[in-house]
Amino acid sequence: MLSRLAKTLTPYTAGEQPREKTIKLNTNENPYPPSPRVAETLAGFDAAKYRLYPDPDARALCRAIAEYEGVAPENVFVGNGSDEVLSFAFAAFFGGEDKPIAIADVTYSFYKVFASLYGSVCREIPLLGDMRADIKAFAAAAERSCGAVIAQPNAPTSLAESAEDILGIVRAFGGKTVIVDEAYADFSRVPSLARHIAEYPGLLVVKTFSKSRSLAGARCGYAIGGAELINALRTVKDCFNSYPVNAVTAAVAEAAIADDGYFRDCVAKIKATRSRMTDGLRALGFDVPDSDANFVFAAHPRFGGEYLQKELRRRGVVVRRFDAPRVRDRLRITVGTEEDTDSLLSALAEICAAGSGR
Amino acid sequence: MLSRLAKTLTPYTAGEQPREKTIKLNTNENPYPPSPRVAETLAGFDAAKYRLYPDPDARALCRAIAEYEGVAPENVFVGNGSDEVLSFAFAAFFGGEDKPIAIADVTYSFYKVFASLYGSVCREIPLLGDMRADIKAFAAAAERSCGAVIAQPNAPTSLAESAEDILGIVRAFGGKTVIVDEAYADFSRVPSLARHIAEYPGLLVVKTFSKSRSLAGARCGYAIGGAELINALRTVKDCFNSYPVNAVTAAVAEAAIADDGYFRDCVAKIKATRSRMTDGLRALGFDVPDSDANFVFAAHPRFGGEYLQKELRRRGVVVRRFDAPRVRDRLRITVGTEEDTDSLLSALAEICAAGSGR
Repeated sequence: MLSRLAKTLTPYTAGEQPREKTIKLNTNENPYPPSPRVAETLAGFDAAKYRLYPDPDARALCRAIAEYEGVAPENVFVGNGSDEVLSFAFAAFFGGEDKPIAIADVTYSFYKVFASLYGSVCREIPLLGDMRADIKAFAAAAERSCGAVIAQPNAPTSLAESAEDILGIVRAFGGKTVIVDEAYADFSRVPSLARHIAEYPGLLVVKTFSKSRSLAGARCGYAIGGAELINALRTVKDCFNSYPVNAVTAAVAEAAIADDGYFRDCVAKIKATRSRMTDGLRALGFDVPDSDANFVFAAHPRFGGEYLQKELRRRGVVVRRFDAPRVRDRLRITVGTEEDTDSLLSALAEICAAGSGR
Repeated sequence: MLSRLAKTLTPYTAGEQPREKTIKLNTNENPYPPSPRVAETLAGFDAAKYRLYPDPDARALCRAIAEYEGVAPENVFVGNGSDEVLSFAFAAFFGGEDKPIAIADVTYSFYKVFASLYGSVCREIPLLGDMRADIKAFAAAAERSCGAVIAQPNAPTSLAESAEDILGIVRAFGGKTVIVDEAYADFSRVPSLARHIAEYPGLLVVKTFSKSRSLAGARCGYAIGGAELINALRTVKDCFNSYPVNAVTAAVAEAAIADDGYFRDCVAKIKATRSRMTDGLRALGFDVPDSDANFVFAAHPRFGGEYLQKELRRRGVVVRRFDAPRVRDRLRITVGTEEDTDSLLSALAEICAAGSGR
C-alpha cells in the first residue's frame, strides 16, 4: 500500500504541543502576541472574500517583504511556513542529485528529512568542539556536494557565525545553491545576509514570521534570492499546490511586517530576557553559550539532560532535548516572558538543590 | 543551479485570477459567501493565539469532519487545500513506483504534475466517446498499475459515474490505493464514497472546503480512508511541513462544517442555477452534458472554443478552456449567481447572433 518512496521516509518530530497548562519553552514560540495591526487586520477581514482563491503568488505580501528587505519583489518567494519554503528549496536545488547536501552534524533535524523526500542525501560536517560551524570543512566540501544548508544562527546550538564566514562558504560553493536558514536571525548580533543576494547568485536566505513576528499559528515563511532561484521555487510550488498561502495569513503577515516599531520592541525585550536568563542559568552552574537566538542551549556538569527535562516537566515547565550524540545532555530552552524566566530559574534552583541525577 | 528533479518538472497552470472587475466563472469558486458562522469565528479569533504553533494534526477539525462523514477521527487527514492532500497522497502511495498510476486522459491536469514531483508516471485511460470514464479499461489496468486516481465527478467533463462503477474499479485494484477525488461531489447526484472506506482498505476519498463550502481562500482539504492510509499521509506530511493547516483556517473550517443547513441551502441554489444555465445554453445551441459539478462543460457546433472564450472575455466574462485534444472547443463555465448566469447567457446570445468563428 505504501509507495517505495514512503517506505524510505522517517518523519521529523516536531516539539510537543502540550494540552495541559504548562510553561511552554520547547518550540521557540514568541512569548508576546503579534503586532496590534495583526488583530486589526483579522477583525477587518471580510469573510465573504474567503469564497475566492487567494493570489497564487501572494504578490502584495511579496512586495511588502521586498520593501522591508531592500530587494525587488521578484527576489521574494512566500510559503506556508518556512518549513514549506525549505521543502520546496530542497526539491528545486537538490532533488535527485547524486552528490550530497552539506549540512552540520548538529543542526535543524528536518534538513535530512527534506532530503529523503526528494531522493537526495546529506553529508554531515561535524561542528567543532565548541559547537561552532567548521567553516573550512564546509568550504572544502563544496566540490563533492550539490549544495549546502546552514542555519544561521544554528539550532539547537543558538550560535551564529560571522557574516564573512558564511559568505565565504557561499563563495566556495560557486554557483551551487547555499540555503542560509535565518529562522532566528532577528535575535542575532549578526545581520541578515538577505542584502547580499545580488552579489551571490547561489545564496538563498530563508526567514519566517513564526518566531520574531509571533505568527507561528498563521504559517508564513519566505525566501530571498536571485530571480532564477525564486522562479525555481515557484515552479516546484506549482507542482505541489497552486495556492499555499491563504488569504488571511497573507493579510496578517503584511500587517506584521509593516509594524517595524512593535517588532523592534518585541525583539529587544526578548534579547533582554535572554541576557537575564543566561546569567541566571550560569549562576546555577549551567554551561550556556552566548545565544544569538530566542532560546539557549544549556548543560549542567552535575545533571543529565533527560533528568533535568523530566524534573522540569514535573514542575510544569516544558523544554526540548535532542537525543543525539554530543547534545543529549543539553536543554534547548525558549526565552519566554520575564515571569516564565522566573519560574524556570526557580524550578531549576530547586532541582539543582535537591540532588544529582544523570 | 536547478536540481535534476526540478529540470524534469512542468508545473500545473491554475486558472487566471483576473485583477480587473469581471464576472469570474473560470476557477469554480462558490458565488456565495461561507456560512455566517465563519465570519463569527473569524471575528472571535484571538489574535494573541497566533504566537503559538497550531495543532500539527488539527485534531479538533478532524473530529468535526469525522462526525460529519460518519467515520472515526483516525480516518481523517486534513491539509492546506485538497491539492496538498493529493500531493501527499501521490508521495505516500505512488512515489518512486515503477508501475504507472492509472488516470483518465481528460481529467484534473494536476495529477500528472504530482506524479512527476515524486518520480512516478501516469498511464492515461482514454474517456469513452461520450466523455464517460472507461470503467472496464480502468479495471483491466489494475494489474499493471501501482494505483489509480479518479475525479468523481470528473473535471473538466462535469460527469459522475455510478458509485457501483467506481467501487468496481476499487475492487479490481485489490489492496492498491485508488484515490477518488470528490472535490465537486457535493454538487453531484451520486453520493460520496466516504462511507465505504471500511469495506475497501485501498480507497482514499479526497474532499475540499474550497467549492461547496466557499472557503477557497482559507485553503483546507481532507482525505477519508483506512487508518493505514491516513497514517501514511501523516508520515509524508511530517517529512514536508509539521503544521500545514494554520490556526484560523482550522477554526473556520470547523465552523463551516458545523453549519449543515447553510451548506445544503447553498448547494441547492447552485444546483438550481446550474439547471437554468444548462437550459439556457442548450437553447443557444450548445452541447451541454448534464453536470454533476458546480460547472458545465459546453461546446457549440458553430463556434470554436478559443473564439468563444475571447469574445466572452471582451464582454467581461472569464471562463476556462483547456488546449488539449478532444476538449479544446469546450468551455468550462462555473455556475455563478443568478445574475452572473444572466450576464453569461446574454453575452453568449450576442456572440452567437453576431457571427461565426473557430
